[in-house]
Amino acid sequence: MTTAVGPRDLGKLFDPASVAIVGASEDPDKYGHWLALRALRDTRPSYFVNRSRETVLGRRTVPSLASLQEQVDLAVIAVPAAGFEEAVDDALQAGVRAIVAITAGLGELGGDHLRRQEAMVARVRAAGAVLLGPNCFGVLDHSTGLDACASKFPRGSIGLISQSGNLAMDIAAHLHAGGLGISRFASIGNQADVDVADLIDSYVGHEPTRAIAVYCEGFPAGRRFVQACADAHDAGKPVVLLTVGRGTASVRGAASHTGSLVTSQAVVQAVCDAVGAEQVFTPAEMANLLQALTRTTAPPGPRVGVFADGGGHASLASDALEQQGLVVEPFTDRTSTLAATELPVGAGTSNPIDIAGAGEKDIDCFYRISRLLVEDADVDSVLLAGYFGGYRSYGAGLGRRELDVARQIGRLVTESGQTFVAHLMFDRSPTARLLRAAGVAVFRDAEAAAWALHRLWVRAAAIPTGVPETPEAAGRITETGYWPARRALAAAGVPFVPAVEVRTWTELEHALPGLDFPLVLKALGEEHKSDLGGVRLGIGDPAELAGAWRDVQERLGPPTCSLEQMADLDDAVEIIVGVRRDSAFGTILLVGLGGVNTELLQDTQCALGPVNQSTAVAMLGRLRGAPLFHGFRGRPAVDLAAAGELISSLSHFAAAHPEVSELECNPVAVGPSGAVALDARIVLAPGSVDVETGPQ
Amino acid sequence: MTTAVGPRDLGKLFDPASVAIVGASEDPDKYGHWLALRALRDTRPSYFVNRSRETVLGRRTVPSLASLQEQVDLAVIAVPAAGFEEAVDDALQAGVRAIVAITAGLGELGGDHLRRQEAMVARVRAAGAVLLGPNCFGVLDHSTGLDACASKFPRGSIGLISQSGNLAMDIAAHLHAGGLGISRFASIGNQADVDVADLIDSYVGHEPTRAIAVYCEGFPAGRRFVQACADAHDAGKPVVLLTVGRGTASVRGAASHTGSLVTSQAVVQAVCDAVGAEQVFTPAEMANLLQALTRTTAPPGPRVGVFADGGGHASLASDALEQQGLVVEPFTDRTSTLAATELPVGAGTSNPIDIAGAGEKDIDCFYRISRLLVEDADVDSVLLAGYFGGYRSYGAGLGRRELDVARQIGRLVTESGQTFVAHLMFDRSPTARLLRAAGVAVFRDAEAAAWALHRLWVRAAAIPTGVPETPEAAGRITETGYWPARRALAAAGVPFVPAVEVRTWTELEHALPGLDFPLVLKALGEEHKSDLGGVRLGIGDPAELAGAWRDVQERLGPPTCSLEQMADLDDAVEIIVGVRRDSAFGTILLVGLGGVNTELLQDTQCALGPVNQSTAVAMLGRLRGAPLFHGFRGRPAVDLAAAGELISSLSHFAAAHPEVSELECNPVAVGPSGAVALDARIVLAPGSVDVETGPQ
Repeated sequence: MTTAVGPRDLGKLFDPASVAIVGASEDPDKYGHWLALRALRDTRPSYFVNRSRETVLGRRTVPSLASLQEQVDLAVIAVPAAGFEEAVDDALQAGVRAIVAITAGLGELGGDHLRRQEAMVARVRAAGAVLLGPNCFGVLDHSTGLDACASKFPRGSIGLISQSGNLAMDIAAHLHAGGLGISRFASIGNQADVDVADLIDSYVGHEPTRAIAVYCEGFPAGRRFVQACADAHDAGKPVVLLTVGRGTASVRGAASHTGSLVTSQAVVQAVCDAVGAEQVFTPAEMANLLQALTRTTAPPGPRVGVFADGGGHASLASDALEQQGLVVEPFTDRTSTLAATELPVGAGTSNPIDIAGAGEKDIDCFYRISRLLVEDADVDSVLLAGYFGGYRSYGAGLGRRELDVARQIGRLVTESGQTFVAHLMFDRSPTARLLRAAGVAVFRDAEAAAWALHRLWVRAAAIPTGVPETPEAAGRITETGYWPARRALAAAGVPFVPAVEVRTWTELEHALPGLDFPLVLKALGEEHKSDLGGVRLGIGDPAELAGAWRDVQERLGPPTCSLEQMADLDDAVEIIVGVRRDSAFGTILLVGLGGVNTELLQDTQCALGPVNQSTAVAMLGRLRGAPLFHGFRGRPAVDLAAAGELISSLSHFAAAHPEVSELECNPVAVGPSGAVALDARIVLAPGSVDVETGPQ
Repeated sequence: MTTAVGPRDLGKLFDPASVAIVGASEDPDKYGHWLALRALRDTRPSYFVNRSRETVLGRRTVPSLASLQEQVDLAVIAVPAAGFEEAVDDALQAGVRAIVAITAGLGELGGDHLRRQEAMVARVRAAGAVLLGPNCFGVLDHSTGLDACASKFPRGSIGLISQSGNLAMDIAAHLHAGGLGISRFASIGNQADVDVADLIDSYVGHEPTRAIAVYCEGFPAGRRFVQACADAHDAGKPVVLLTVGRGTASVRGAASHTGSLVTSQAVVQAVCDAVGAEQVFTPAEMANLLQALTRTTAPPGPRVGVFADGGGHASLASDALEQQGLVVEPFTDRTSTLAATELPVGAGTSNPIDIAGAGEKDIDCFYRISRLLVEDADVDSVLLAGYFGGYRSYGAGLGRRELDVARQIGRLVTESGQTFVAHLMFDRSPTARLLRAAGVAVFRDAEAAAWALHRLWVRAAAIPTGVPETPEAAGRITETGYWPARRALAAAGVPFVPAVEVRTWTELEHALPGLDFPLVLKALGEEHKSDLGGVRLGIGDPAELAGAWRDVQERLGPPTCSLEQMADLDDAVEIIVGVRRDSAFGTILLVGLGGVNTELLQDTQCALGPVNQSTAVAMLGRLRGAPLFHGFRGRPAVDLAAAGELISSLSHFAAAHPEVSELECNPVAVGPSGAVALDARIVLAPGSVDVETGPQ
């Protein structure tokens, strides 16, 4: 929508010296009423603007900000759409530094509304002010005491940015259930001026914010968002992102309600992978991951030591961990022997440990087992599952002892720095609170604990590539078709199977000495050749070639053909390599298994482009079909280095050609000693064909 | 462990006329104390047995049940293990009809403990009594007022059976969060006498029980469990089963704490599929599915109409539904037009509908949109997502109107019988309770609502095959090896590629006229031939055959060989067909894609065997790779009927041969006109080789 250079100063938005509520109201059903109530509770000077009432909530109003003799830092505007621009201009005239625009029915309606909104933003910027919204829900900062939004948010260390007020409340409720709260909240609305990237930048510099939760449907300046996430990562403040667009229906929904461009899940995942942000799909996942990220540490490996009172909880927790790809392997004999000395006969002393009812008689054993597992060098993290936290229901004495044990476990976790997570049935008990405060991530369900632990491990093992550098734009591509695409890509370093473009029999005869049989003859045309059904494979000798040529000419009369050496696919793995240009984030690279598997399995990996060779090889390694590359069933291993080089070259070509909307080599044959593309296809962005310059 | 014929009468277990607490105690840390407290609250006569105290909780004790002059129906025994048998014998002598054995440290320790437990059970049965446990947690029946367990369970319509007390509490807490409760609860412990199948039988006849929740780790009489589930299904009381064994660690845990045989997830799934039971993997899933099953109806199809206040919730709910494979397609123009007339400008009126803030001003629109979607013939079910239930926070007036709207929606749902589910942030609000009572399944999270709705749809579309009839045992197989396996399977109707067993060159020359080139020569031995590396494919003529024979004889000197026609695999799809005998449930059939895909994708389906042809075809159809069967990429469709016939024959053979522990044809080539096995392998159960009769 609009761009700004460098982090913007949002100090007056989150910590204004004074606040005005424009549209302050006596009507208990209106935002202007709720905002006025909150302003009255604030210690900072506040003013109510209302043109029709002399007082609101017992305080004298002013008809306009300009009529006020005081300088006001922040104006919160909650007037009907018809009066919005006037209210903004009044605020700017009065010299406000920041505006929160609650008013809806503006740019999100599109057309003329959008143009007027853009003009209004230009006036705000010219005045050196910032504007949050419009069509937003408000702003809150527990560290400065600012509360200019319609809902209550529990206090805590999570910076929340949301495009939806109800989702913000939903997320906050889930955070609260996990013992977390909000440091700052901003509702972004139409992102007409201040956008999600500006807010992340500002949260990175906000000391009480330890992690940043973002619900956002559209990313108007995608690469700036990516950079903001990268900066947050470098500052040790992870960004956890919830967005929509996994299915097709949510795109309809989003388009109709915000006008935002919805970005698909794979694209968002590619963005997150590049900069160490975390994509989640539900408010519950968001809260669970934030709890893990802010409360405990990343495990150095996948081996989890599990213990519970009761084999049922121990087993279900182990199942959940293994389901996530974590490892619950038998303990060393030493650990099992030591566990046995701590527990009654009949207890499970391998992994998982079942303390087998010892809880009531010997609740200290929870601490002793915790210590045993924390100190075991062959255990990377510990999961306590089940009933712990509920023993107080047996009586006050046991309840006190349980709290003592929790304190001991807490000290152990704090001092060791070990990754320690818990599934507690009684996840809101005093015991749970105590464990959380000491650095144990406590979840209501074992599957949530396992999921979060797995995410921590994956995150620790992944090294973000950072924001890829986009190469200088190269000369514009103006021709589509197989041969133009092939030539352009070959010039960019993508290896192809040897081939010659031939229009006539004479050209073919001329080309033949440079190629080895067996050959392939492809009839090409305006449309992609496969649509013509004109590909003849495995041509073994000149006579067969002559026959194929005659057949293709008579049947299809193509304007041009390609005569190619047939690749030896016997020991090769076919892959697909493609790029699509995302309007928000730029080139998104896709690699996947080719052939039958492309359609059947959709086994693909995406990355923000361009990528270097090692990133490309890592992407191939993450495919489910990756075992095929490494000598599957006695076949030779294939040349992944060459495949990575090809993918990297292709991705750099795409990044240097913003006029290309799609680009694909399918298949690429990766053999034991090299990789070659067997096909090439380019799609230009609308308006790009035969146009050398001008807007896209 | 032991078997019983026909449903057992558990009437005295759940509705005794009188109860004795054996081991009633003054010690507030003991089961005998908690049980005694509960017995005092019961209106039925109760007696405390304690040999060392004259009174417990102010009531006179008796030293033994035999010393009591009254007939007692139920004895709950909570004495130390050392006194357990004496207590049981005392109870039997006094004529009790049912025993609940809390005492632990018995059969679950194995060895001599297990033998003594079995002898004790024999005495119980000889006396015509029933015994629950030992090592159990108690029993409860809200419909008869019986409460003989140590925990509180909310009242409701779910019959709960659990092998773990803590898991029972965890499940009950999740049920309570979903507005559900327990009708009956039984803790099964060691299942020494009464087992999970007996309990299901009894719950089927228990009128207040509408669905049956089972947490169980082992199934001592597997096929009887299967039959009980089938009977429950026929009675309209779905069984939802939570078990362990998805990973490897939980098996260690279970084995060490109950001695039960843990059954793997695929086997359990096969059992559930056969009889319409539902496997779940977590207590939360159990509660969510039970809510859906008992509260709403099954949707006739996958098309969901979605609405929410706010595009965020509408979009995330749609994403969650599509992620589950449900369909959120655009509404008809008529529905969208009607929706637009009910909602403000800017609302989303396609699917999902975003009422766009209309809630505060016009809360009735929730009802009008509900009616619109319930009455839309192109919508199979309705999902309401998000903030509804929270409008009372805006004030008492809006809260009352919200409840009125919920009542209207409830009437609509009750009268229409339409499948209606909700994700309410405020899932414990009065509004949520009202909707639940009217037949709306209300979940805290959209993903849980989507998951449960998908399960309802899948359940409605699946037709359980019922308990498969096991054929009469056939003559025992005593030989393993390729040719014996092949002959046995061929005799049972499994088609194989033409082949002859040849030990000498003379036998080969004799066989040759009956076979067509190209041929395959397999060197066979004691070990499976593939282990010898002696398979020569594509032998084109007699000279090549002679060379191959010489090579194989010189290199491997196999005791025997197989000379086979080479199957034409060009248009064939390779599958794997196997059976393994599960110690609890009998033959489990497995089908999957063969070749590379078997190992790489683990794309398999299992079923309780034997299966008929149509079930076999349906199993193939559920493979992810199923598109390969139906003319993928221009290839001809393959003969699924023939594949189904082959699979059915193989499964019946396995069912008739309990001495076979594993059986596999891999690959089976399924071509356009037939299916043939290219290999066969049989593994006999330990002790079965060369033994004609005797125990297995």
